[in-house]
Amino acid sequence: MKAAIFKGRNTIEVGERPDPQIQEPTDAVVRVVRGCVCGSDLWYYRGINQHKVGSIGHEYIGVIEAVGADVTTVAVGDFVIAPFTYNDGTCPACRDGFQSNCVHGGAFGNGDVDGGQGETVRAPFADATLVKVPGTEGDFTDEQLASFTALSDVMCTGYHAAVSAGVKEGDTVAVVGDGAVGLSAVLAARMLGASRVIALSRNPARQVVAKEFGATDIVEARGDDAVQEVLRVTDDAGVDAALECVGTDQSIQTCAGIVRAGGMIGAVGVPLYEEFEYQTLFWKNVGIKGGVAPARQYIPELLEDVLAGRINPGRVFDFTTDLDHVADAYAAMDERRAIKSLLTITR
Amino acid sequence: MKAAIFKGRNTIEVGERPDPQIQEPTDAVVRVVRGCVCGSDLWYYRGINQHKVGSIGHEYIGVIEAVGADVTTVAVGDFVIAPFTYNDGTCPACRDGFQSNCVHGGAFGNGDVDGGQGETVRAPFADATLVKVPGTEGDFTDEQLASFTALSDVMCTGYHAAVSAGVKEGDTVAVVGDGAVGLSAVLAARMLGASRVIALSRNPARQVVAKEFGATDIVEARGDDAVQEVLRVTDDAGVDAALECVGTDQSIQTCAGIVRAGGMIGAVGVPLYEEFEYQTLFWKNVGIKGGVAPARQYIPELLEDVLAGRINPGRVFDFTTDLDHVADAYAAMDERRAIKSLLTITR
Repeated sequence: MKAAIFKGRNTIEVGERPDPQIQEPTDAVVRVVRGCVCGSDLWYYRGINQHKVGSIGHEYIGVIEAVGADVTTVAVGDFVIAPFTYNDGTCPACRDGFQSNCVHGGAFGNGDVDGGQGETVRAPFADATLVKVPGTEGDFTDEQLASFTALSDVMCTGYHAAVSAGVKEGDTVAVVGDGAVGLSAVLAARMLGASRVIALSRNPARQVVAKEFGATDIVEARGDDAVQEVLRVTDDAGVDAALECVGTDQSIQTCAGIVRAGGMIGAVGVPLYEEFEYQTLFWKNVGIKGGVAPARQYIPELLEDVLAGRINPGRVFDFTTDLDHVADAYAAMDERRAIKSLLTITR
Repeated sequence: MKAAIFKGRNTIEVGERPDPQIQEPTDAVVRVVRGCVCGSDLWYYRGINQHKVGSIGHEYIGVIEAVGADVTTVAVGDFVIAPFTYNDGTCPACRDGFQSNCVHGGAFGNGDVDGGQGETVRAPFADATLVKVPGTEGDFTDEQLASFTALSDVMCTGYHAAVSAGVKEGDTVAVVGDGAVGLSAVLAARMLGASRVIALSRNPARQVVAKEFGATDIVEARGDDAVQEVLRVTDDAGVDAALECVGTDQSIQTCAGIVRAGGMIGAVGVPLYEEFEYQTLFWKNVGIKGGVAPARQYIPELLEDVLAGRINPGRVFDFTTDLDHVADAYAAMDERRAIKSLLTITR
């Protein structure tokens, strides 16, 4: 099959991979319809984080082509959304709704299991992992297909920031980070009832999406200036929740500076910082929670919102190409010409 | 007036202080009936944390002797509980229920305001700070007076650990730290509905109190061994919440090791550690929240529980003496002969 191949820093090429096969009776093989590029893929691309040479990508939707003997709840021909991590559905973490911490789970695209930037993927624990979309590919608009793809990771990750911070009716929330996750977090905060959402962004295109997603305020400053500006617009009260969607020292310090006493930081930016001055939070009674989003837990409810037309998370995709041009998809994001790149994949 | 005077490491003496006077129209002057020694006082005593030479102690109950012109909700003769921090009751933090972060607030006993280990205290913002007990000193047993004193700090701090961790009905909770705060946290976890509370303690006297307070399991191991033991007794699932009531590197690492994916650490041990590897928590989707307890927020509800006989938090006091013997009160705790020392103060 044809697939994107990560060959090292700044090098993504289209190449050949063995066709994925059923290996375990709980597997399914999925023909990919849409894939996309994640902000974390960019970190591999830029050489900031390590990635194996080979298959890449962990977000996809597609049609099941084969299932193992033990698969019972999904079937050949089903149109499905894959969360970016697979999970067995039975371990304590899965039962608690944290499938991304499944003891037998793993992530697509950076190891033994092929990624979503290719024609076909083997999905382990298909019953527990895949979420069926009612209908077939042809029943949906491109906009809907983009939104289904967003549920594979980015929308669920933004949602996880807001859920982890306990965002509730009437809250004032700030979102630090205007990438696709940050924008999704703006939408998520509004879904959970925030009456005011302050988006930190100095990029006009991203500001537009932030406002579409419900941001009530835009703050263009960064670092200490951003802290002062958020405090100013909240009459020195600070925000009930800060959603950390970057993962750098500066972004976490910004969050710590703008949260009110007793507030929460919802943290989903993969931490690039080694250590963290928890004392700053302790003396303010501020909490921090987050991590790798249990997308599998959120997809069913968010899918209902997409199908009902209440949310349009696929709006974060502003660059679309095909698998042959996957290198362009990376370059557009790397050069910040695109918020997030969608891949239309046909075989 | 007579008061305990901190004179430096290992030196607490009884001495004279000027009688506290009304300085602001919102002040009250309180004659102390019971004071006590906090675990954090011990850290000053041991030279681990810095303390000014002078008045000490931040936990007390007493009778109002004088009020300023603007005080309206409490009056001379009222029997009151003082939270360990005073607060104005009007700033954003106070309105959000985090009075310990009041922008005009402060702590008793380590600066401009005298402490609770003395005959009299000036209480700033008396209306907002002090909580009236219905009745007079003579209406209550020694056991009740001890429990009122526990509400000044230790019980509220243990409660804050459990509240911050979001402990709820049916949870499995572990409490790291068997000091008076840790024991109070055991009681608090049960009050909030935890069905299982694992107390980490190797001290027989403290184990007895932990069990009285509702601990269902005792784990005597420490460090990595404690982690393994808690995982063993929870069938490798870990606990929903770990309550951190120590503040050392080892105790926070123990908490991080025993919490289940997606669980919470409620942290009230004043952090002695400089930095903290948040990555450990991030990858497990574990959150951490806590800080300096807003005792003022919790006292009214906990007072009702004490008055109704539902809880007896004063049980943490197992050494009682008078102000003249305050040095013995410190020594008993320093030498771990006592969990917590109560001071009966008469003038």
